[in-house]
Amino acid sequence: MTSETAAGNQRRQLHLGLFNQPLGRHVAAWRRPEFTGNPLDINYVTQLARIAERGKFDFFFLADSLVGPTPGATQRAGNLEPLTTLAAIAVQTTHIGVAGTATTTFSEPYNIARSFASLDHISRGRAAWNVVTSTWNAAARNFGAERLPDHAERYDRAREFVSTVKGLWDTWADDAIIRDKSAGDYIAADGIRELNHRGKHFAVEGALNVPRPPQGHPVIIQAGASDDGQNLAADIADIVFTAQDNIDDARAFSEGLRERARLVGREKLPLVLAGVLPIVGETREEAQAILERLEESSDIAQGIAQLSQRWGFDLSTYPLDEPPPPAVYDGNSHSDGHSRRKLFEQRARREGLTLRQLARVAIASRGHRLIVGSYVDIADDFEEWFLTGAADGFNLIPPVAPESVEAFVDLVVPELQRRGLFRQEYAGTTLREHLGLKRPERIRA
Amino acid sequence: MTSETAAGNQRRQLHLGLFNQPLGRHVAAWRRPEFTGNPLDINYVTQLARIAERGKFDFFFLADSLVGPTPGATQRAGNLEPLTTLAAIAVQTTHIGVAGTATTTFSEPYNIARSFASLDHISRGRAAWNVVTSTWNAAARNFGAERLPDHAERYDRAREFVSTVKGLWDTWADDAIIRDKSAGDYIAADGIRELNHRGKHFAVEGALNVPRPPQGHPVIIQAGASDDGQNLAADIADIVFTAQDNIDDARAFSEGLRERARLVGREKLPLVLAGVLPIVGETREEAQAILERLEESSDIAQGIAQLSQRWGFDLSTYPLDEPPPPAVYDGNSHSDGHSRRKLFEQRARREGLTLRQLARVAIASRGHRLIVGSYVDIADDFEEWFLTGAADGFNLIPPVAPESVEAFVDLVVPELQRRGLFRQEYAGTTLREHLGLKRPERIRA
Ligand SMILES: Cc1cc2nc3c(=O)[nH]c(=O)nc-3n(C[C@H](O)[C@H](O)[C@H](O)COP(=O)(O)O)c2cc1C
Ligand SMILES: Cc1cc2nc3c(=O)[nH]c(=O)nc-3n(C[C@H](O)[C@H](O)[C@H](O)COP(=O)(O)O)c2cc1C
Repeated sequence: MTSETAAGNQRRQLHLGLFNQPLGRHVAAWRRPEFTGNPLDINYVTQLARIAERGKFDFFFLADSLVGPTPGATQRAGNLEPLTTLAAIAVQTTHIGVAGTATTTFSEPYNIARSFASLDHISRGRAAWNVVTSTWNAAARNFGAERLPDHAERYDRAREFVSTVKGLWDTWADDAIIRDKSAGDYIAADGIRELNHRGKHFAVEGALNVPRPPQGHPVIIQAGASDDGQNLAADIADIVFTAQDNIDDARAFSEGLRERARLVGREKLPLVLAGVLPIVGETREEAQAILERLEESSDIAQGIAQLSQRWGFDLSTYPLDEPPPPAVYDGNSHSDGHSRRKLFEQRARREGLTLRQLARVAIASRGHRLIVGSYVDIADDFEEWFLTGAADGFNLIPPVAPESVEAFVDLVVPELQRRGLFRQEYAGTTLREHLGLKRPERIRA
Repeated sequence: MTSETAAGNQRRQLHLGLFNQPLGRHVAAWRRPEFTGNPLDINYVTQLARIAERGKFDFFFLADSLVGPTPGATQRAGNLEPLTTLAAIAVQTTHIGVAGTATTTFSEPYNIARSFASLDHISRGRAAWNVVTSTWNAAARNFGAERLPDHAERYDRAREFVSTVKGLWDTWADDAIIRDKSAGDYIAADGIRELNHRGKHFAVEGALNVPRPPQGHPVIIQAGASDDGQNLAADIADIVFTAQDNIDDARAFSEGLRERARLVGREKLPLVLAGVLPIVGETREEAQAILERLEESSDIAQGIAQLSQRWGFDLSTYPLDEPPPPAVYDGNSHSDGHSRRKLFEQRARREGLTLRQLARVAIASRGHRLIVGSYVDIADDFEEWFLTGAADGFNLIPPVAPESVEAFVDLVVPELQRRGLFRQEYAGTTLREHLGLKRPERIRA
């Protein structure tokens, strides 16, 4: 159901992920009197995944970082760890993909390979790995280092990491398990090979201790926005997750990425999924009212704090009713901040926003694109992005949980289905099947 | 329901774990025509845990290593990874503890702390961590090293690792999460502290990104048999898992361990659980028949191969009908093999076994104590071990799966309950409650 290019094709359909945001992305969403969700309650998180499954979403997505709250901070809620959470969700769902983030900077290929292989077995072929390189120096300080390795070094390691993990997944033949009861052979004598990888960052000799995943390789997601990040994505990503402020930039980004992928000879181009925060109503007015109600209990200082982090310096002393000052780019640790900051900067410039107005956007969106409208508005927006090649689909970031997810599933999904833009039913059972991706052959040694 | 000593106490009850052995421990168990279980099928593994839960077991236990099969090997089946597996099981059970093995040698405290914290949240207070130091050099070769660090070095790292993990679990106050909607504070300003650990092996600055586990600290299991291993257990273990061949050695081991724990000032002494492989029948003859049937489809060469690994050299050229030759101990990498080999050596000496007979024991037990008898025999054995201080309970290793587990739950558990040696119902909901362990206070910084 997918085509190899972004050009119009009647049967091509868009793809949807649900970004887990158990408190809602809008900083005030959890403060609503009716909100009872608890991010540590696996039943609640599973309920969100099940709503997405009811909406035939391709996957449920967990972001991740290796940084806890700083003392005195009152906002970071603490979350469950992605792999354990997704395993619990996998056995309580039947079709939706389970996508988890894991960094290549503070883990080892053998551990990551087996965890995702295991998740792929537990979910019967629905696992995806979002490959990240870590963004904050605070993560390094939890792993014995003062700061992150340099940006280029992180990507160099990431590249070797991913190929090592794929190599480990391929140490077992698909038909290695024979269970020959009369001969007493559980696995075939030629079913297993050693990896014998010796690279710059890793040396891994043996076979994995988990058989080849049902999908061959779990789906690879990548979200790097830098030049190195996009080059890695062009090489290895099945899905690219991106933060984009407007359709023109998104189209330029997607076309650029597809071009990079073509240049390295990719047959199947990466699917670009743009982050989006939809506030949906039956009508535009209803949607607007939801946003306004949230803004009432928002604290502008939280938006300023968030922008300060992106900007690289404290903005709290700047005048609120003037345009924000230019930001600082240090070329290394704030590379993720960089792409999200650009998003804020562009929006401020384009719409002539003051620091106060921009802080309001930050409060609602935290760096992704906020759209507010009726379900027809949202479907129109998605359709335009999709048909003009700006995105192959969307990673939905619910501003309010679980209501934004429910409203999207109940209102927008049927509208997208009516337009033939989205599946009515899951056609297959694995995430690769949902995405129209081939199951990779075992690479020859 | 537990006392602080092994001395007789009417209300003291024994504890039971189920060691996951999805193919059955006996090397021929999977070759039975009726066997259909698949270790990669989460539903099958969950079924085993549910049988144990029906039998009111304290916990379901997953061993682990970071070594895959070697090319040409036809026996190692491949397994799911413990943490993902236990998370999936946790949401499909209600009371049984979920205990997973993770090594301190090839992982980082921050990653382990959050995975087990997450599992404890997902299971609502039923998680346990079996702390191991890795046994095989092959694991090192999957993590960029030629061989394991020295034995003493591994334990030194393990000790710092565990205290760092506990420190991370304590970075959040139990009541850190306040969700003050009107003030907009999700966590209390004084709810979080940094760890600021700087040790010989690890430097970890920040707070964990997962709130304090429901149990405060997940339960700690430890299975080191060496002097260093027992000293670590005396300091940190809630449960010690041990391979013991006979009641006298077991009592000496348990008493020694309790003495070590007293010397370091432990209030609550570690619970010693001995590994045991019961082949149970309504009658002794029925049990014997089960074993004989298994032996028919066993290959003596597999037993010899297993013993060779423990012995440190190839035994296949030695005469089968004479006593086995003495073994070699290299003092480092085969320290685990050491304790299990001792078990074989003792048994051979005590019972005057030939190499062939010992290979048969190896085939059935793979280094743990095999007992064959009626449910009354097994209950008698357990009662004697328990009442004379040889063990506080047992980690059950099913020779045949799922039948050994079912037979134990249906025959032996009711017998133990009739004797007042085992719970009729779970009294609490957390693993600590099952074990009679206090919930640890947050350590003051
Ligand atoms: C849309 C988007 C989502 C991301 N999600 C995560 C995440 O969950 N965890 C993480 O550590 N980094 C995340 N990142 C950071 C990237 O993976 C990447 O490490 C970072 O952007 C630095 O690389 P770059 O300079 O190529 O952008 C995300 C980035 C983007 C653009
Ligand atoms: C009963 C028992 C069970 C064990 N289970 C595991 C295991 O699942 N994974 C592992 O890596 N090591 C396991 N070990 C090895 C120990 O944790 C320990 O690392 C090893 O015995 C070396 O330490 P030692 O010299 O103190 O015995 C086990 C040991 C015993 C005695």
